[in-house]
Amino acid sequence: MKRNAVLVDGVVLNGPIIDSCAGEKFVEEVCRILMNEVVQKATDSSEKVCEWQDPEQLKKLLDLNLRENGETHQKLLQICRNAIKYSVKTSHPRFFNQLYAGMDHYSLAARFITEAMNPSVYTYEVSPVFILIEEAVLKKMIEFIGWEEGDGIFSPGGSVSNMYAVNLARYNYCPDIKEKGLSQAPRLVMFTSEECHYSMKKAAAFLGIGTHNVYFVKTDDRGKMIPEELEMQVDRAHKEGAVPFLVLATSGTTVVGAFDPLDEIADICDKHKLWLHVDASWGGSALMSRKYRKLLHGIHRANSVAWNPHKMLMAGIQCCALLVKDNTGLLKRCHSAEASYLFQQDKFYDVRYDTGDKSIQCSRRADAFKFWMMWKALGTMGLEERVNRALALSRYLASEIKKRNGFELLWEPEYANICFWYIPPSFRNIEKGPAYWQKLHQVAPVIKERMMKKGSLMVGYQPHQDKVNFFRLIVISPQVSREDMDFVLDEMELLGRDL
Amino acid sequence: MKRNAVLVDGVVLNGPIIDSCAGEKFVEEVCRILMNEVVQKATDSSEKVCEWQDPEQLKKLLDLNLRENGETHQKLLQICRNAIKYSVKTSHPRFFNQLYAGMDHYSLAARFITEAMNPSVYTYEVSPVFILIEEAVLKKMIEFIGWEEGDGIFSPGGSVSNMYAVNLARYNYCPDIKEKGLSQAPRLVMFTSEECHYSMKKAAAFLGIGTHNVYFVKTDDRGKMIPEELEMQVDRAHKEGAVPFLVLATSGTTVVGAFDPLDEIADICDKHKLWLHVDASWGGSALMSRKYRKLLHGIHRANSVAWNPHKMLMAGIQCCALLVKDNTGLLKRCHSAEASYLFQQDKFYDVRYDTGDKSIQCSRRADAFKFWMMWKALGTMGLEERVNRALALSRYLASEIKKRNGFELLWEPEYANICFWYIPPSFRNIEKGPAYWQKLHQVAPVIKERMMKKGSLMVGYQPHQDKVNFFRLIVISPQVSREDMDFVLDEMELLGRDL
Repeated sequence: MKRNAVLVDGVVLNGPIIDSCAGEKFVEEVCRILMNEVVQKATDSSEKVCEWQDPEQLKKLLDLNLRENGETHQKLLQICRNAIKYSVKTSHPRFFNQLYAGMDHYSLAARFITEAMNPSVYTYEVSPVFILIEEAVLKKMIEFIGWEEGDGIFSPGGSVSNMYAVNLARYNYCPDIKEKGLSQAPRLVMFTSEECHYSMKKAAAFLGIGTHNVYFVKTDDRGKMIPEELEMQVDRAHKEGAVPFLVLATSGTTVVGAFDPLDEIADICDKHKLWLHVDASWGGSALMSRKYRKLLHGIHRANSVAWNPHKMLMAGIQCCALLVKDNTGLLKRCHSAEASYLFQQDKFYDVRYDTGDKSIQCSRRADAFKFWMMWKALGTMGLEERVNRALALSRYLASEIKKRNGFELLWEPEYANICFWYIPPSFRNIEKGPAYWQKLHQVAPVIKERMMKKGSLMVGYQPHQDKVNFFRLIVISPQVSREDMDFVLDEMELLGRDL
Repeated sequence: MKRNAVLVDGVVLNGPIIDSCAGEKFVEEVCRILMNEVVQKATDSSEKVCEWQDPEQLKKLLDLNLRENGETHQKLLQICRNAIKYSVKTSHPRFFNQLYAGMDHYSLAARFITEAMNPSVYTYEVSPVFILIEEAVLKKMIEFIGWEEGDGIFSPGGSVSNMYAVNLARYNYCPDIKEKGLSQAPRLVMFTSEECHYSMKKAAAFLGIGTHNVYFVKTDDRGKMIPEELEMQVDRAHKEGAVPFLVLATSGTTVVGAFDPLDEIADICDKHKLWLHVDASWGGSALMSRKYRKLLHGIHRANSVAWNPHKMLMAGIQCCALLVKDNTGLLKRCHSAEASYLFQQDKFYDVRYDTGDKSIQCSRRADAFKFWMMWKALGTMGLEERVNRALALSRYLASEIKKRNGFELLWEPEYANICFWYIPPSFRNIEKGPAYWQKLHQVAPVIKERMMKKGSLMVGYQPHQDKVNFFRLIVISPQVSREDMDFVLDEMELLGRDL
């Protein structure tokens, strides 16, 4: 070996230029901070769920500027502490704001491994472990849907999974569109309920279908798609000379947590030869529970399903599967571009394990691994227990809301979304006319502001259809207990009783 | 507080049901394994870069099955060790296989924080720190592009960034398409080079443009788009009655590492009023270097740019920015769906910080944070040094290839892609006719198999245009040195000289 210094373009090329010891020490110190400040404190209900700062103030606290020179380790550790301090503690037992919450230690450990290994999942060659694990997880999820076989891929979000479904349905209707585009195609129409996730509109816009070609089907008073209304919309599209090609049903709507009647919808899809996609991003996890899987009765009849284990099952953002009943390679035919630099056919192993051409992405994260690790750790029964407990807690909270003065439940929860108004004492004798609703509409935002500034609680609110602003509380984490449910109601009363 | 046990649906709801102490201990033990097996060993050139197993064998070693009951911690730790052992060490100094490699300790620490905090970046309310940091990083990247202002978003991959660009260009051409779709629209045509990334075709297919409406422009012998050929293709589309709307130039092509002549392409876009997108996913990082930013001369004239700091800058997969010159809110108008449950307008803070409606995703990872942390740690000068060193190493390797018997350089590297043939001694006196090329085509796959089974090295190969299989070696990491470059050539000779 030549050992003299080699200089090219003024750069010394001998030896690594990185101080690995210092780097390793830094990672170790950050891990220590994380164990104390996040893994322990951020799940402790006696700590604050958030440390509110308004944007302009927080910008100063974070010292956002990027400079010519690097900072010292001491300064960097302070930066890490600040980033943690001022972030919302989504694993806190008082965080009920989104469709994810809590901390699963096994998933977290797997996520640390993934980050340290830095894989990209497209070929067996560079990701042998993660490719096989993804296959195993998808197979198991397919089993829970009730298909005998199928295909699938993990995607960066339920919205993207829904886009995959639109593309598959379109390709299934007419494969030529992949090459020729839509400019010569008839007007394609897709159907979903009024209560669907907003990603349906995003998908229609992005894929060139157009948001006006999403026909929204009326829902009943529980937020479920009305099959007769679906059939009417399909007929309407036919009469207009358009081409219906896809029904997007929802299992677990975002606000209400409603489940569309899949079996009846599947009958209509069969009759009209429409692709049935079920957006079970939120509700899919009920399939893990023998008690609650009936909420998705008929899901085995779907052509594709979106299911996000990062929500109810706490696998960590993001962990989102798009599952497809087809087992003839439709997913790959629909999305492939056959890049010769990545998917060489003369490799020395079975290239069917190179799954990257099923994807719309090139580099792709190993999101299946964390879910697999959790499942290994808890077993199917452990996952089932989580779902059952979250739904029992939801029922408990709903019953408490009905008992308490000043709280009004909007819908009996079918899943883990509890929707309710808090009605301050001064409102309680006002007649429920327009003035009342207008006043009530302003209550939730004020209570929300107060809970965040106090850091005691985070619950979302929104108006919805004809309802003025109400709270939507989501129960997920096994770190949450009945005591936390009682706390929510006590705290809301405390924060809002003077309004 | 009521303290008696509360039972709902047979589930006890008092207290958390999770054993946090055991979970924390597990995370701590995994962190210890990670520090030893990944952070230290996987970056040590005396260790193997991969531990090859064929898929069927590896399935058995991993024990993929998911069962009713969970496994013990002891078993789970073994699972973690196996997952690490059989994964490719992408941070190893002998991993040259993809457009990412190496380990940055600061980014890694930030990624651990992100995983532990589990944020989703759509509203200031739930991600105050990560929203502000994304804004700061985007602003800085925009400065390096040379725009005075702009907009942007981090996306799950360069492929998705390119899709964003197609959608923006289309919306810019005709905003009505968002609502009406393409079925009434004229045939839209986009232009890119023969050497572009395969995501251009994926984007055209996915967005309903159609792959046939991607017109591929010829490149010169260095892999750069020929401006005159672009103009000819634009004219051809016009003559056909189609509507040109977008040119996708590439800064740093995937195989060759070529940079399109942006300034001349921008002139053509100006003349024909076409959106100019630059896919600088790979080459964008040259902007950090005062010496090499000239490779992207003219990039400030682009309407949008894709730039992945997870490649040359080692920010960790994925870290991909889509940057837009427009500052009038085009990105949001084009992608918004205005979900009332998430983007309420009656919040108590400035809702312009709720950036989620710029995205095609709903939940979205905090990918900007790791890049920001790296930049804080290394400073602009530290990032510049990385780029300069990787490119100096590339030049060194190219010059060694030219010196050595049995190696043939295909192109003088402009960036960090070194493309070469290894020619076994038995080939060296054969005439370069069809038989020679056919034989040479089979050399790279065999050497690749041998290097992986030995675990000594990982370098990619592919055929490309009229060239038979050749190696493409990518230099990125500051853990790589001149000695590793010498090793590559010695090792290839060792593995291939009997062929």
